[in-house]
Amino acid sequence: MALIVQKFGGSSVANAERMRNVAKIVTDTYSQGNDVIVVVSAQGDVTDELLEKAHEFNPHPSPREMDMLLSTGEQVSAALLAMAIKAAGFPAVSLNAWQIGMVTDSTYSNARIKSLSDERIRAELNRRNIVVITGFQGINKFYDITTIGRGGSDTSAVAVAVKLGADCCQIYTDVDGVYTADPRIVPDALKLDEITFDEMLELASLGAQVLHNRSVEMAKRFGMQLEVLSSMSHRPGTKVKEVVKKMESTLISGVAKDDNVACIALTQLQDRPGVAYRIFSLLGGAHINVDIILQSIGRNDTKDITFTVAKNTADEALEILEEHKDELGFESMTCDKDVSKVSIVGSGMINNPGIASQMFEALYSVGVNIRMISTSEIKVSVLIDSADSAIAMRSVHSKFFNRNGV
Amino acid sequence: MALIVQKFGGSSVANAERMRNVAKIVTDTYSQGNDVIVVVSAQGDVTDELLEKAHEFNPHPSPREMDMLLSTGEQVSAALLAMAIKAAGFPAVSLNAWQIGMVTDSTYSNARIKSLSDERIRAELNRRNIVVITGFQGINKFYDITTIGRGGSDTSAVAVAVKLGADCCQIYTDVDGVYTADPRIVPDALKLDEITFDEMLELASLGAQVLHNRSVEMAKRFGMQLEVLSSMSHRPGTKVKEVVKKMESTLISGVAKDDNVACIALTQLQDRPGVAYRIFSLLGGAHINVDIILQSIGRNDTKDITFTVAKNTADEALEILEEHKDELGFESMTCDKDVSKVSIVGSGMINNPGIASQMFEALYSVGVNIRMISTSEIKVSVLIDSADSAIAMRSVHSKFFNRNGV
Repeated sequence: MALIVQKFGGSSVANAERMRNVAKIVTDTYSQGNDVIVVVSAQGDVTDELLEKAHEFNPHPSPREMDMLLSTGEQVSAALLAMAIKAAGFPAVSLNAWQIGMVTDSTYSNARIKSLSDERIRAELNRRNIVVITGFQGINKFYDITTIGRGGSDTSAVAVAVKLGADCCQIYTDVDGVYTADPRIVPDALKLDEITFDEMLELASLGAQVLHNRSVEMAKRFGMQLEVLSSMSHRPGTKVKEVVKKMESTLISGVAKDDNVACIALTQLQDRPGVAYRIFSLLGGAHINVDIILQSIGRNDTKDITFTVAKNTADEALEILEEHKDELGFESMTCDKDVSKVSIVGSGMINNPGIASQMFEALYSVGVNIRMISTSEIKVSVLIDSADSAIAMRSVHSKFFNRNGV
Repeated sequence: MALIVQKFGGSSVANAERMRNVAKIVTDTYSQGNDVIVVVSAQGDVTDELLEKAHEFNPHPSPREMDMLLSTGEQVSAALLAMAIKAAGFPAVSLNAWQIGMVTDSTYSNARIKSLSDERIRAELNRRNIVVITGFQGINKFYDITTIGRGGSDTSAVAVAVKLGADCCQIYTDVDGVYTADPRIVPDALKLDEITFDEMLELASLGAQVLHNRSVEMAKRFGMQLEVLSSMSHRPGTKVKEVVKKMESTLISGVAKDDNVACIALTQLQDRPGVAYRIFSLLGGAHINVDIILQSIGRNDTKDITFTVAKNTADEALEILEEHKDELGFESMTCDKDVSKVSIVGSGMINNPGIASQMFEALYSVGVNIRMISTSEIKVSVLIDSADSAIAMRSVHSKFFNRNGV
């Protein structure tokens, strides 16, 4: 007998039929003799509908009231799923954040989990109940309701799994695992049986929206094995763990694409110390994350600085830099939003020099121009024109996963 | 400066426009220098929609999970109203049942309020916040969410008003006060300026669905003055209090009609002691409330017993009696669901004999046959054919409130 935490996202519980399907998965697991804790998100578009209602009053509603509002979505899901499980003849009880002491900090709409009480959950498990918990939400030290950010139910599930010492934490979603690339772009992408936490973290931050990044970080920190799988298929998914067995041939785990990128270029900056520091501290002060940075020598003792930011923060970045134009002393500023970042990720590349060059070769072979390059121990990212991104992904994927070429 | 509790029902907060209207009423009261606590119900049809969702899984869902589900309706209203008040430029905070320690017993779906903590509410009032509280819900000793029955938000509001020592508790609804009769049936019905708790209790239990009965009982017990008024009009409503000033002419406060009645007749029961007791203890055991009882002498040393029950409990009552037919020893059993109860209520009738006969005269004058009669100190009820109920009400109302006759 094991203790298994199963998390179901909004699309898995979107309507009564899918809810019954989830109840089936849960009760099958329970029937095999396991203790089962279920963590649920709000149904389908419920969160968006609540957001819309709030915006009828105020485009920027109070974050505290917003969390009070949004947290009802998960409570509805949890109660309905408990009913569906009971209707199938199994014992179940729903619990929300304050009932399990899910304490967070006070950053409304993006709170961090600080602690969790296992008392009530254990009591319900001891009664042989299937315990259905609201994801996404907590309470702060003022006993006010908080939410832990979009996709936060993944993190709720891992937190519960860690606290209760679960044997594994299954994240059910609408894809049946982690693929070597997005199958909508690369049709012959392969599903991975296993992937390491570090690779998953890189893939997640690079645009593969399978798992919430904070959930993977927490699972890695506490060594909680995750499994990503589909609530629709009955196939095994992808296990996310510390160390995985790899075949010789799979030096990389996946190819990811991120379209939420804009590239800002400042030209002919005076080449004096502290200019780069000043630029990025200005942006950092406005909570704008800078990703890839490229500095090159310009004409007449000047330099050019090019960097990427998330597309939705580009306009704010431009405004800030324009305000400080005199101080920074650049000649011109351009912004290109038609760019994409394509990355390969794999812990195997640490010991295999030449992986990057294989990627560049794959891009060259289909005529894709590389604008910027960034590397870490387990990834290589390139910035290219968005128009090239699909062919680039297919060519790179084929290079590493398909011996027959593109 | 006063402390005022204002309760708004589902139709008052049904959409953004009405929510803004409520925010206006609340902030106007606050702007006059008062402390304001608002108690809200779920928006419009939200509770019914949630019920429907639950019934997709189970026609009889678990009451505990049902309360977990339904309580989200008020939480949505409270958060949205707090946002609407803030959007109007006033400070507000929403609080739900567990945040104000609204402790009830464990009768899910129909819980009774046991205690309430004023700590958090006072703290928010001291910060000059308008405090928006979820009606209808509480938590029990297991820290599970309960609801206190349909219309229970009235009771929540009175409980909060009593605990905080409010100067008055205003119940905003979609009618602008308590009328001498339902204006849809009796067009010249009059709005009452004042009514006593006892009269209001009789009217409420007789089908005038203005105030939730338990809320009036609680207000009477603790001497909390209520006011019933409309959130749409800006006119004064009806005050409900212990003692009211009455004009000489208004011996009665109102004429009420209740169509939720069925009349069951058992004929030729053996006339032995304990038969009536046995019948009504059987029904009481099944939680079926019996209202008017009439016992008459039948043929051949037998007796007939006729009584009324709520229409929706009639079939169950018939089943129970049929099961025990041999034991009870009646000859035949009939049930008539086409009956209505028309009542007059007024504390003035205690000292005025002859009120009942004036009512009977009014019914006789329009040819309405009286099937059963029941009286108390402050009311007279008659059971008549449903087809006669409108003309009966108009004639009785006219007798007491209109010197010009029908």
